[in-house]
Amino acid sequence: MRPLRARPRSASVETAGDPRQFIGARKSMDPIETKLRGLGLELPTAPTPGGSYVPHRISGNTLILSGVICVRDGIVTHTGQVGRDQTVPTACAAAELCALNLLAAIKAALGRLDRVEEFLYVGGYVNAVAGFDQSPQVINGASDLFVKLYGDAGKHARTAVAVAGLPRNATVEVQATIRFT
Amino acid sequence: MRPLRARPRSASVETAGDPRQFIGARKSMDPIETKLRGLGLELPTAPTPGGSYVPHRISGNTLILSGVICVRDGIVTHTGQVGRDQTVPTACAAAELCALNLLAAIKAALGRLDRVEEFLYVGGYVNAVAGFDQSPQVINGASDLFVKLYGDAGKHARTAVAVAGLPRNATVEVQATIRFT
Amino acid sequence: MRPLRARPRSASVETAGDPRQFIGARKSMDPIETKLRGLGLELPTAPTPGGSYVPHRISGNTLILSGVICVRDGIVTHTGQVGRDQTVPTACAAAELCALNLLAAIKAALGRLDRVEEFLYVGGYVNAVAGFDQSPQVINGASDLFVKLYGDAGKHARTAVAVAGLPRNATVEVQATIRFT
Repeated sequence: MRPLRARPRSASVETAGDPRQFIGARKSMDPIETKLRGLGLELPTAPTPGGSYVPHRISGNTLILSGVICVRDGIVTHTGQVGRDQTVPTACAAAELCALNLLAAIKAALGRLDRVEEFLYVGGYVNAVAGFDQSPQVINGASDLFVKLYGDAGKHARTAVAVAGLPRNATVEVQATIRFT
Repeated sequence: MRPLRARPRSASVETAGDPRQFIGARKSMDPIETKLRGLGLELPTAPTPGGSYVPHRISGNTLILSGVICVRDGIVTHTGQVGRDQTVPTACAAAELCALNLLAAIKAALGRLDRVEEFLYVGGYVNAVAGFDQSPQVINGASDLFVKLYGDAGKHARTAVAVAGLPRNATVEVQATIRFT
Repeated sequence: MRPLRARPRSASVETAGDPRQFIGARKSMDPIETKLRGLGLELPTAPTPGGSYVPHRISGNTLILSGVICVRDGIVTHTGQVGRDQTVPTACAAAELCALNLLAAIKAALGRLDRVEEFLYVGGYVNAVAGFDQSPQVINGASDLFVKLYGDAGKHARTAVAVAGLPRNATVEVQATIRFT
């Protein structure tokens, strides 16, 4: 098969460690990052895996991201269970931070945020007391950010459940799978 | 590429909102819906997402459905935890309703139930007391219906776990991913 | 399309029930199984589904495996919740057994372990007391084995959470999705 584009897909992944090369004179500003700043938000440092796994895997044009907790600069910002240590609004803010961490992982994987074609699936896990019934309201903190940034392309299939516990006693963990170009 | 069929895939998705056009003079009856009625069951209204997400996403020929709870006409039919508020048999009935809701979501997405080629994966979540050990028996209520309707094509890989809580205090939530034609 | 290889993909799946035909004179020893034995480990019998589902589904070159618990020869080796009935080290051993069961399921599906091209995703579920915060350490017992056997190809995206309960009161359940050739 003949190569159809000058920049092979694998190259952009391999060079993800040096994002500066995407901000050269001939590269346009990433419109998603512009929108993010317009919301008063900033991309955090991509979170380091807390175990024997990697931040993402790519299969074809599908990017499978590892679950990320509400951590910033290595510090877990929201700990404990909703219904005892956290409220729905504080947990919702934790979910937004999870979304930011997923965006950081997407940029690390693909070099640019605007290579996302469509969010396919989001799995939301809320560390909560037994019987907690508002996991959707919590995970909306992540989902809403994806839709604000990407519009229809940010909408996704989703499952949101309350679990008995999360890594490092974080209040929220979110996983996502996207299709990219 | 030349179009290989008169009815493009995307069209049937776009017109999913008006399923009547699939029941025209030249369209055969959907054999899966016929089977469903033979079991004394009826397709419920497709459930509305309870948060900032959409009922499904399509990637290639894969349909990723959002998790659905045991809800009918907007009312949650089974609430609370198995082992305290519900039993395995009542939760099993709740799982069957989740399966019906997934079928309704499939019809809304694809226009017809017989476009399912194969169920790939089912994720089952049971709202249950700590230590509950019969999540498979509960989720069988969903899995058995898929197999009754689709035979071998309804068989799927699966994970079934007990969780601390579910949206709207529902007793069961089920998510599915299928391949379609 | 012309067939590009003598051994069609579907054939190897269909004959998975008789793995002896892969150990014929002209078939090389599976290097992954050799490594496994070098670690002092052995493939268990592939676990039987504990409900109305199948051990795996294949879509294209993606193998979706059902969640498996820590069971050997039909006996659950680790039961109860971490933080009360099990410790992180014993649960970590349970996770390794889950990984061995997944490998047995891969061999049953594909005929050989060395047909794995890449582990894509691992979902880890730890049966644990409310607030348990070390699910990553537990699930590392599974992830580490995949990396020991497959190197970089064994690395995967992952989510690891603590849940309220697991089938047969098992301490750990692990699900995996892989790409194969």
